[in-house]
Amino acid sequence: MILLTRRYRFAASHRLHSGQLSEERNRQVYGKCNNPHGHGHDYILEVTLRGPIDPRSGRAADLPALDRLVQERVLAAFDRKNLNADPPDFSGSVPTTENLALAIRARLLDRWASAWPRLDKIAILETGRNSVSL
Amino acid sequence: MILLTRRYRFAASHRLHSGQLSEERNRQVYGKCNNPHGHGHDYILEVTLRGPIDPRSGRAADLPALDRLVQERVLAAFDRKNLNADPPDFSGSVPTTENLALAIRARLLDRWASAWPRLDKIAILETGRNSVSL
Amino acid sequence: MILLTRRYRFAASHRLHSGQLSEERNRQVYGKCNNPHGHGHDYILEVTLRGPIDPRSGRAADLPALDRLVQERVLAAFDRKNLNADPPDFSGSVPTTENLALAIRARLLDRWASAWPRLDKIAILETGRNSVSL
Amino acid sequence: MILLTRRYRFAASHRLHSGQLSEERNRQVYGKCNNPHGHGHDYILEVTLRGPIDPRSGRAADLPALDRLVQERVLAAFDRKNLNADPPDFSGSVPTTENLALAIRARLLDRWASAWPRLDKIAILETGRNSVSL
Amino acid sequence: MILLTRRYRFAASHRLHSGQLSEERNRQVYGKCNNPHGHGHDYILEVTLRGPIDPRSGRAADLPALDRLVQERVLAAFDRKNLNADPPDFSGSVPTTENLALAIRARLLDRWASAWPRLDKIAILETGRNSVSL
Amino acid sequence: MILLTRRYRFAASHRLHSGQLSEERNRQVYGKCNNPHGHGHDYILEVTLRGPIDPRSGRAADLPALDRLVQERVLAAFDRKNLNADPPDFSGSVPTTENLALAIRARLLDRWASAWPRLDKIAILETGRNSVSL
Repeated sequence: MILLTRRYRFAASHRLHSGQLSEERNRQVYGKCNNPHGHGHDYILEVTLRGPIDPRSGRAADLPALDRLVQERVLAAFDRKNLNADPPDFSGSVPTTENLALAIRARLLDRWASAWPRLDKIAILETGRNSVSL
Repeated sequence: MILLTRRYRFAASHRLHSGQLSEERNRQVYGKCNNPHGHGHDYILEVTLRGPIDPRSGRAADLPALDRLVQERVLAAFDRKNLNADPPDFSGSVPTTENLALAIRARLLDRWASAWPRLDKIAILETGRNSVSL
Repeated sequence: MILLTRRYRFAASHRLHSGQLSEERNRQVYGKCNNPHGHGHDYILEVTLRGPIDPRSGRAADLPALDRLVQERVLAAFDRKNLNADPPDFSGSVPTTENLALAIRARLLDRWASAWPRLDKIAILETGRNSVSL
Repeated sequence: MILLTRRYRFAASHRLHSGQLSEERNRQVYGKCNNPHGHGHDYILEVTLRGPIDPRSGRAADLPALDRLVQERVLAAFDRKNLNADPPDFSGSVPTTENLALAIRARLLDRWASAWPRLDKIAILETGRNSVSL
Repeated sequence: MILLTRRYRFAASHRLHSGQLSEERNRQVYGKCNNPHGHGHDYILEVTLRGPIDPRSGRAADLPALDRLVQERVLAAFDRKNLNADPPDFSGSVPTTENLALAIRARLLDRWASAWPRLDKIAILETGRNSVSL
Repeated sequence: MILLTRRYRFAASHRLHSGQLSEERNRQVYGKCNNPHGHGHDYILEVTLRGPIDPRSGRAADLPALDRLVQERVLAAFDRKNLNADPPDFSGSVPTTENLALAIRARLLDRWASAWPRLDKIAILETGRNSVSL
């Protein structure tokens, strides 16, 4: 069994503001990310698969197929988009990096081919200082 | 004479769209960056000064003073902001990286202390693939 | 449950020399790091928390509070300091990267708020070639 | 117990082609890497050890000894070499990154000193977008 | 006038050996790169243009057109290729990074549109330690 | 004519304090770097040569000879050393990055072979945020 990680990039904007929190609490929790006009980031997405190595090909995964899945399900929905307004994923939640990771995992598993190695982990690197994984 | 470069980071969103171009031409020129809801980037700003080394201190520049200038004139205006809506700099132009570089140079020179070494160059690195300098 | 990692930087000097080893063994074990005048590094510290995502805020941790803790307990003690002489942590041990990681974890856990997500891991990247984690 | 990771680099060429697959399937699986004349990469190898910290030296591993082992068993065999033609490791398999990781782990464990901390993980970063670990 | 740099990547193999030098001199000049079976690298190519900013679009260059030119003239010829055997560029010279830079500049200028901003510089980063520019 | 840049690394400690400045001015100019116990950095040194490409070898410089010069004249003097105490270079000046660049250039030119391409530039990257070049 081997772990195989592939890295993708996308750029998106968001505004962090929760309707379930007071204005003051919003400013405390999100700081400058609560700015009404929104702002953006370059995100790095790392997708990690875990599976056996096929002895004939020496490969643990079909990377072109993974690229197509990530392109169709993740990059087409989020790259150069406003996360609050464009995709439906954050209609009831705040587009923090944490919720973005949940949304990406759900989008990938929704179309995961049964014959593929299992999805071991996804990680998002936000600004060079923060990252999340699950 | 020595060159001294200092690096800053900020995150901002923008939408690339020109009222002087047709809708079709806008899509051709800006591609995915023409998305109506905007998107964002983490920008790296490099400010390069050129001047002599002070023999008493061994320093070519007053870096805390440069940091204060960049903080007050650039980061306070652009970090976690929407470049189309928040600062006045792009009311008559498109917030491309090229125009962002012009705006940052103008903002710095506007308050440049006469005793400082001269501003040799500013560079902006946009997405890991593109950079501009002037 | 999600993992959230935040990255900090500090610069410090140290000299690697153990009173429990002979002079010759000190030179063998520490090589150039045994130089009597000491030397220094830029360290990168990564702090990883593990916890649930708060459904109202979409956040897994209070990052400003974590920043304050790391600033007060780690950066104030180690940044721009001599690890052998300035902090009390290495009075009975050698300030290797391994012991530095132990000291940082102890300093953080000493004031860890009971309501916080648990500390999953800390990692220190020393020179671009070496890193430790625990 | 602590994890200690050390990073090495090497450059090698390979051609990905499997005698157990049809010509058409070879092109599908390996894409441009099936080019008959081969091509190359700069590889980064990360070796992670897990063990206790020696209280006298404050160290978890003998890094000069690890460097010698990696030099003799891995870098001397693979650096600036053609993976298909030079080392015997891939006479019956395809030099994919996955099989390269298996070969490196086998080469290291073959001479692993019994007194050393155990080999926790090796990782290979291939092109900045792909990595494997086991 | 502004400088605009765009970054591309490609992987290729080469063997450094000159028929105009003795075997011994070949080994001295090229070291491990003289290995008969060849080896490879991941190259980073940076193309820098210099020109005015178009006031209507705020752009200094047509990046999609530049991408097409680099794809057709450079990446199609060199990516995943053996520089000694695949492209005709090095039939009479050694594919060092220096000569690779000369070849890439000639390939770009050969089809440079007269309306484009001028080609200011190309740079190639070879292994993380070496780079050339002209 | 081509520019060729080669990158080296070293770690050193220093304390920034000038006997020609008052205690208060020392604290203003050097900030935390005025800490009496000193601190350290990992420095990256980039040496750039400018010269013609030898048509027989395709090379613009003798890199093994450059490596030997940098090793003997720079790394042996500064790597894992205390810049205030170990080398004689800063007996009458403060070991700022600016003065370190002057010292390295003088050390290289002192032994520069007349047949070599000329030294175009040296650059020092201090902490990921600052760099100097001359």
